[in-house]
Amino acid sequence: MSAGGGARDLAEAGAVLAAEAARFASFGWMRGTSGNLSVVLSRDPLRLAVTASGRDKGELTSADVVLVDERGAAVQGGRPSAEAALHARVAASTGAGAVVHVHTVASVAMGRRKPGGILLRDLEMLKGVGQPAHGVEVRLPVVANSQDMAELGDRLEAARDPRMPAVVVAGHGLYVWGADPRQARHHTEVVEWLLELELTGR
Amino acid sequence: MSAGGGARDLAEAGAVLAAEAARFASFGWMRGTSGNLSVVLSRDPLRLAVTASGRDKGELTSADVVLVDERGAAVQGGRPSAEAALHARVAASTGAGAVVHVHTVASVAMGRRKPGGILLRDLEMLKGVGQPAHGVEVRLPVVANSQDMAELGDRLEAARDPRMPAVVVAGHGLYVWGADPRQARHHTEVVEWLLELELTGR
Amino acid sequence: MSAGGGARDLAEAGAVLAAEAARFASFGWMRGTSGNLSVVLSRDPLRLAVTASGRDKGELTSADVVLVDERGAAVQGGRPSAEAALHARVAASTGAGAVVHVHTVASVAMGRRKPGGILLRDLEMLKGVGQPAHGVEVRLPVVANSQDMAELGDRLEAARDPRMPAVVVAGHGLYVWGADPRQARHHTEVVEWLLELELTGR
Amino acid sequence: MSAGGGARDLAEAGAVLAAEAARFASFGWMRGTSGNLSVVLSRDPLRLAVTASGRDKGELTSADVVLVDERGAAVQGGRPSAEAALHARVAASTGAGAVVHVHTVASVAMGRRKPGGILLRDLEMLKGVGQPAHGVEVRLPVVANSQDMAELGDRLEAARDPRMPAVVVAGHGLYVWGADPRQARHHTEVVEWLLELELTGR
Repeated sequence: MSAGGGARDLAEAGAVLAAEAARFASFGWMRGTSGNLSVVLSRDPLRLAVTASGRDKGELTSADVVLVDERGAAVQGGRPSAEAALHARVAASTGAGAVVHVHTVASVAMGRRKPGGILLRDLEMLKGVGQPAHGVEVRLPVVANSQDMAELGDRLEAARDPRMPAVVVAGHGLYVWGADPRQARHHTEVVEWLLELELTGR
Repeated sequence: MSAGGGARDLAEAGAVLAAEAARFASFGWMRGTSGNLSVVLSRDPLRLAVTASGRDKGELTSADVVLVDERGAAVQGGRPSAEAALHARVAASTGAGAVVHVHTVASVAMGRRKPGGILLRDLEMLKGVGQPAHGVEVRLPVVANSQDMAELGDRLEAARDPRMPAVVVAGHGLYVWGADPRQARHHTEVVEWLLELELTGR
Repeated sequence: MSAGGGARDLAEAGAVLAAEAARFASFGWMRGTSGNLSVVLSRDPLRLAVTASGRDKGELTSADVVLVDERGAAVQGGRPSAEAALHARVAASTGAGAVVHVHTVASVAMGRRKPGGILLRDLEMLKGVGQPAHGVEVRLPVVANSQDMAELGDRLEAARDPRMPAVVVAGHGLYVWGADPRQARHHTEVVEWLLELELTGR
Repeated sequence: MSAGGGARDLAEAGAVLAAEAARFASFGWMRGTSGNLSVVLSRDPLRLAVTASGRDKGELTSADVVLVDERGAAVQGGRPSAEAALHARVAASTGAGAVVHVHTVASVAMGRRKPGGILLRDLEMLKGVGQPAHGVEVRLPVVANSQDMAELGDRLEAARDPRMPAVVVAGHGLYVWGADPRQARHHTEVVEWLLELELTGR
């Protein structure tokens, strides 16, 4: 997509996000109308396509997308979710090209059990988020929830482990990111798999 | 749909309910021939389209629907489920435009564990049923089951929390409602998600 | 289908059984090549169409079916599973028109926990297998497994509760029956739902 | 497929492996880009078609396949996974015609609980991996993980029970094999079913 982020780019991004959302919805990770996905269309200025708020995430079309700026304010398209501001902040601070926010039962259940963070170690699946499979303990951070996106963003940045492209928001769900929508999808699948494993106990 | 609730409206409502039922059936929430869905076609007099009884809920057609009155008696179409009376009562007392009744394992399992009601708090997903995500304890009521729809309706009305568009019927399943079939679907997905979360324990 | 059970009837029965098997396979209840389904084509003499042995149950065609007699011996078509004899016996002794045998995790897990039988009570879902929803304790029998179909059939007949169209075979899976393939499907879904509920504990 | 293992054979093998991978991916057993599948194209010299590395396993095409030799080195096609060497070794040492490597939550969870091996007994499903259903205790071996494929292969060969076409790699996943891709699929489904059963406890 061109750096300009025009109407055509936005529709293309909307089509990609709709397909990704339908996939996550089929896993039960976007129940109700929960969650939202984004992809970066330009870096300078920062512009993201974010899925429209309040829609069934299994039924999005390429038009169900909003172009937002670095503060999550709408540049083009309808009303973005308040969480668009957090997508923009994650994209700015991590350099990610795509951000996934889903509400999975395993992430909220594990956030309850391990409010100080979820320690992961000696798991081949860690390679799927760029971590070593052996000998290193990795922390998946858990941050407290907030309705104030600036506050939630501060917590996320403070807690974020640069080696781990994901954060659990307690009582809420997951934020995961990657270089592009496909990598963000794979990171999300890997993190959720790790959480489902930990949920089985030891 | 017009207020008259004619044959064409009934078939349209049947098509909507068949699609919603197939969706819930695919989640395993309508096993056997369990559960039923309804949508209000007129308010005065109250008329609801309710899914026909005894059919596989993944295989309904637009014809598998009955028009019932405020007591759940058939006005048009075949034999309604006895539970149609409860759908009508929920629609009348709550003002809902659509009612979902499904049999989920999580709702019956949690009804057993928490017969006095399921307390929910500090969960972002509560926003999906119009509740605050922070600082307020919300009760998802659990009522005793009955084969007498008047009795079950009395219990449901007595226990119902006006802030929560759902009630668990112990040993039975869920009643959930919303302004229209899509909102009722989203409320159902949110309530079931909350129940699945609570089922993982703490 | 005519009482004669000719080639055309067998192919029709094969098509019905293939569709039912694909449905159960999609639920994960026929992993590997496990399980088999049957439908009665004639009563006197008893003739059943049974799914062919050793095939992937999600990929059956209408030709993947065998016509067997009251002892489970092939009358037409390929090699039947040894379990065809048990299908025939269930059909003869219960009067059922269709028999479902699936390997579900919940049935084997619950058979381990409750080797003397699984007690069920005060569950609306019991109505789905013709039982009262209130006040009566129903036993889902559990019988020991055997590779000798005569022995297993004896155990099944001795343990069978005439009110309950299903038996758990310990370490093995479920036998469920009904008047026709659709009712047998619904009974299977109901019994499995009850087992999944009990597996969540209390 | 001819013993020569030409371009056409490789594309045919790629199509088979893509379909098998999409199936396993739909079960959630190949999250992220995890796992890989192979099929033997010739025995002397040993040549295997192995799924390409780093791709979404639900979206493979017939071109997403690499031809490797007995050491797992590429003979034709792109970059193979390092694990291709283990596929080749399993094929060589067991005589299997197809190898499945998937990352399932149940295999890693059970490998944690039973690091000395998972004992299975008196389960009809054992017949699905060629074991007796009664009276014999079968061990599903668990081996320690390694990034060194020679070391991991040594462990796998040392631990392997010739009666059981599968090994759990601790903290990693499952290796399962069979005479051809369909049998390897069925063995995988059976082993995973057994692990899911054991995970429910007793």
